[in-house]
Amino acid sequence: MSQEKETPSKISRREFVKGAVAGASALTGASVLAGCGQAAPVPATGMPEEWEKEADVVVVGFGGAGAAAAIEASRAGASVLILERTPTGGGSTAICGGIIYMGGGTALQSALGFEDTRDNMYNYVFAAAGDGADEELVGLFCDRSLELYDWVTDLGMQFNESFMEMKAAGVPAGDGLLYSGNEKQAKYKAVADPAPRGHGAFADGRVGGHAIFGRLKAAVEASGAEVLYEALVGSLVVDADGRVVGVEAEIEGENKYYKANKGVILCAGGYAANAEMVDLHCPSCLRCAVNVGTPGDDGSGIRMGQGVGADVRMLGETATFAFVYGAAECLCRSILVNGEGQRFVGEDNYGEWIGDMIVRSHNVGFLVLDDAVWSMVPDAAKESLTVVAQADSVGELAAGIGLTPAVLENTVELYNEFAANGEDPLFGKDSAYVVPLETPPFYALFFGVEATAFFTTGGLKINSKSQVLDVHSQPVPGLYSAGRNAFAVPARNYVGSGVAVAEVLSFGRIAGQTAAAEEGSA
Amino acid sequence: MSQEKETPSKISRREFVKGAVAGASALTGASVLAGCGQAAPVPATGMPEEWEKEADVVVVGFGGAGAAAAIEASRAGASVLILERTPTGGGSTAICGGIIYMGGGTALQSALGFEDTRDNMYNYVFAAAGDGADEELVGLFCDRSLELYDWVTDLGMQFNESFMEMKAAGVPAGDGLLYSGNEKQAKYKAVADPAPRGHGAFADGRVGGHAIFGRLKAAVEASGAEVLYEALVGSLVVDADGRVVGVEAEIEGENKYYKANKGVILCAGGYAANAEMVDLHCPSCLRCAVNVGTPGDDGSGIRMGQGVGADVRMLGETATFAFVYGAAECLCRSILVNGEGQRFVGEDNYGEWIGDMIVRSHNVGFLVLDDAVWSMVPDAAKESLTVVAQADSVGELAAGIGLTPAVLENTVELYNEFAANGEDPLFGKDSAYVVPLETPPFYALFFGVEATAFFTTGGLKINSKSQVLDVHSQPVPGLYSAGRNAFAVPARNYVGSGVAVAEVLSFGRIAGQTAAAEEGSA
Repeated sequence: MSQEKETPSKISRREFVKGAVAGASALTGASVLAGCGQAAPVPATGMPEEWEKEADVVVVGFGGAGAAAAIEASRAGASVLILERTPTGGGSTAICGGIIYMGGGTALQSALGFEDTRDNMYNYVFAAAGDGADEELVGLFCDRSLELYDWVTDLGMQFNESFMEMKAAGVPAGDGLLYSGNEKQAKYKAVADPAPRGHGAFADGRVGGHAIFGRLKAAVEASGAEVLYEALVGSLVVDADGRVVGVEAEIEGENKYYKANKGVILCAGGYAANAEMVDLHCPSCLRCAVNVGTPGDDGSGIRMGQGVGADVRMLGETATFAFVYGAAECLCRSILVNGEGQRFVGEDNYGEWIGDMIVRSHNVGFLVLDDAVWSMVPDAAKESLTVVAQADSVGELAAGIGLTPAVLENTVELYNEFAANGEDPLFGKDSAYVVPLETPPFYALFFGVEATAFFTTGGLKINSKSQVLDVHSQPVPGLYSAGRNAFAVPARNYVGSGVAVAEVLSFGRIAGQTAAAEEGSA
Repeated sequence: MSQEKETPSKISRREFVKGAVAGASALTGASVLAGCGQAAPVPATGMPEEWEKEADVVVVGFGGAGAAAAIEASRAGASVLILERTPTGGGSTAICGGIIYMGGGTALQSALGFEDTRDNMYNYVFAAAGDGADEELVGLFCDRSLELYDWVTDLGMQFNESFMEMKAAGVPAGDGLLYSGNEKQAKYKAVADPAPRGHGAFADGRVGGHAIFGRLKAAVEASGAEVLYEALVGSLVVDADGRVVGVEAEIEGENKYYKANKGVILCAGGYAANAEMVDLHCPSCLRCAVNVGTPGDDGSGIRMGQGVGADVRMLGETATFAFVYGAAECLCRSILVNGEGQRFVGEDNYGEWIGDMIVRSHNVGFLVLDDAVWSMVPDAAKESLTVVAQADSVGELAAGIGLTPAVLENTVELYNEFAANGEDPLFGKDSAYVVPLETPPFYALFFGVEATAFFTTGGLKINSKSQVLDVHSQPVPGLYSAGRNAFAVPARNYVGSGVAVAEVLSFGRIAGQTAAAEEGSA
C-alpha cells in the first residue's frame, strides 16, 4: 500500500545520527518507524450478510504490484476492484529512485553496447540473492525480464540512451542505464559477465518513482479497473471450505464487504513501518535510522495472510543500505572499519551488501579517510556526512572514536602497503580507489547501524503463479500476493537497486494473470 | 517430540568435514538433516464425528517441555493425555548434554561460594540473548529459576558439589557447576557479575539428558497423566468459534480424534530436522554439518500453529555452535580467522557466539595454531579435528588454505605483538590464552560453516502464560506451547549451554499450569 493520510515525517527518530543520510539519501522517501498500523486482519469465519460490491478480482493495495496485477487481470477480461488506503495510491513504487532492474539483452543494453543473456542475468541474480534464493522464482524473474521491458515501454516509460559510468546510488542526471548492484565485484564476476541492468525510467517529463507510477496509474484507469481510495482492508473473508472469497474494508468509517469471485490479490507492501513486527522478526533493524517505504508498510497484508494459515518465508530478512558512495564516489577511496578497527568489505560494494554486514554483524562502523579524500568531497555532500572525529594521526583518530590505536594503525599501514601497489588483495576493491591514506588530518565518519536504512524482503510464501501457499505448500484457494507483501527474488541479500520495482511488476503481473484465469466461486 | 522409529544416523551429510566433530562433539545426539516430516498439520474446520478419547489437557510431544506441562497440569487436578510419536519419548531433552541453566542464588551456587541474584542473572541473560530478547519472557525465566532448581531437585535430580574450572563444552567428569556461557567475557561482565549457572544433572546413577528425562518420565507416570506412544499428531481441531478443542493423530495406521476440554499444549520441538523448513527460514543452516536434536524436530508443531493463524517470532533464528574449546581447552591459544585471514572473535568465547558469527557472516573459518599449542592437544582430541594445512611458515600456511599470505602474516604478527604483553586489546581474550604463535610447524584446522551444528530457536509466538498468540497478539483460544516449538528466551543469540532445557522446563510448567486453570469448553 502507500502513504497514510498524514505526511510522512522525514526526520530520523535518532536525531544525533546525521550520518543516516549517507545511507538513506540515495533512497527517496525514507520514513520513520511508525507504530502498529490500524489494520486489523482476521480470518472471517462466515459469510457477511451483505456484499457492498463484487468483482472477479479484488486487489488490496494500489502500489506497483497492485497496479500491475490490475492491468493484467483487466486485460484478461476480469472485472477488477482495487482497494487502496490512501487518497492517491502509489506505494513504495511512487517514491522509489526510479530504477527498474531488467536484463537479458534489453534494447537499451544492446543500444549502449552491453551484452547480456537471460542465463547471464540469472547467474548474477541467483548468486547475489544469496542463501535461500529460489531457483524457480529467480528463473521466472529472469525469463520475463525482456518482456517486462517491452511492457513498461508500451505503458509509456522511456529510457534515455545514455550510460552512467560513475559509482552512485541513483541516476541524478537522468541517465538510462547504470550498474546498480554488485555485478562488477570479483565474487560475482566469477559467476556472470558484468552487465548493467539498472534502467532509469523517464516518463511524462519526469524521472523517478512518480514517473513510473504515473504510467501505471494511467494504464489502470484505461483498463477499466475500478479503484476505491481511502479504503483500508482489514480482513479476508473465507468460506466454509477455507476459500478466500472477499475482503472486509473500512471506508468512510464503516466496515463493508467486497466479494471476489475469482480471487483476492494481496499487494499491501512490507512491514518496515510496523515497529512491533520489526521487533518480532528483524529486531536489529529497530536501530536503523530510517525505513524505506511508506507508513502503509505496516505488514497488514502479511498478517492477513498469516491469519488464514498462509506460510511465510525468510520473514525476518531485510534489505539494509549503507552506501559508501552515496554522498560522493570519491568516498570509495576511504576504508570502512568495524568496532574493532578492522576492514570488513571492499568499500566500492553495493550499499545493500555493506549495510547488511553492518546490521547483521558489526553494528559499529566508521569510514576512515585522509584529507586528500576529504578535499575531493563536494561541500553539498559533506552536509550529509557525520564527522565523529578528526585528528592529525591515525592513532589519535582511533582514540577519538574509541578504537585501539595499535589496531587501527595496523589496518591503515597494511592498507597503505597494498595501496603502494594499487591492489586490495584483502577485499578486491577496484584499483582506482586503492590509494594510500597518508595526508593529515584524518577523519572518521559515522557508519554504524544507526546510519542505515532498511525495508523488509521476507513475506508470504508464494509459488511461481503468485499463489499464496499454506504450510503444506498448497495454495490457499482464492489468495494471491506480490510485491513486498510476498517473498520472491531477494533472499539473504538484496540484489541491486531497481530489483524491488522489477519484482513488484513481474509478480504483480503474474498474480493478475493467474487470478483472472481462475474458475471462480461465483 | 523425539526420535523417529528409525535410528538416527550420526554420519554427517558432508563426509569430508571431519571438523564438524569439533563443533558437534560437545553436543550429544546431533543428527543429520532429515526430509520433511510425515506430519501433515491442517486446521480442521469442523468437529469430528467421534472422539476416541478426551482429557482436560492434551499435550503434543513427550520431551522435556511436554513432561513438565503434563506434571503441572496433573498436579493442578486436570486430566492429561500426552500424545508422543516415538515408542519411548524423550525428545531433545533426553539426548542433551545434561546441563540445566539456573541461577539467582541456587543452593549449589551458594555451596560452591558463588554469589548470584535474580537481577544479576536477568542482566546477563537479557544481554546475551541479544536483539529481540523479550523483557517479560526473560524476566519470567529468571523469576522462576530458583523455584525450578527446587522442582527438579524434588523430582530426584542431583547436582554434585563440585565446580569445573576448565573451559569445556560439557561436564565430562560429572561436575555439578560450570560456566556454560559467555558470563566471563568482557562484554557481559560490563552488565552482570559473572556467576556459573550451568548445573550438571545427575540421577539414578547417570549423568546427561537421559538422567534428566528419566526423572521427568517417572514424575509423569506418578502424576496420573496418560501417555499414548507412537501417536503422531497431524492437525489441530478447531470449533466454529476458532477455539482449539482437540487434535487428530495417526495411531496404528488410523486417524483418531482426541478431545481437549481445556486446551492443547504444543511441545513438538523445533524444525532443524526439516530441510524444507530450514530452506524457507534459515537457509544458511543447510550448510551446517549437523543439527542438534531428533528427527522429530520436523516443525510439525510450529506448522500446526501457523495453520490455525498463530503468529511466529524470529522464526529463522538458530543456535549455531562451533566450540574452539570443544576438543581441548588449549585450543583457545589458537587464533580463529575468517576467509580473509582476519581474526573476528575472542577464541575463548562461548561456542554459540562463535558458530553464529561463522554462519551469519564469515562462512569460512580456520583455527590457526603453532606446534606449541598442537603438542598440548591430547591425541584423542586430535582425531576430531581436521587439519587442512600444515607449513613451516605462516605465509606458506596461508597459501595452503587459499588466504593472502601478507594478510595472515600481518594478523599473526599483530597478535604476537599483543601476546608479548599477554593482552588481547582487539577481542579481550583471557590473558591465559594470549601467547605468541611462533613455533613451527603451523597448522590450520577447518572451522567453517560446514563444521557447525545448529538447532532452531524461533517458533510460535507465546506470551508469559505460554498461550499461543495470533497476529493481533491475542491468544488463540485453547492453544498453548513451550519448548523449541515456541520462541521464548534465546533471541539473536543463544545464551549458554543448559538454557534450552531450563527454558523447556520453565515454559512447559507454565503452559501446564495455565491450561489446567482454563475454564474449558466441555
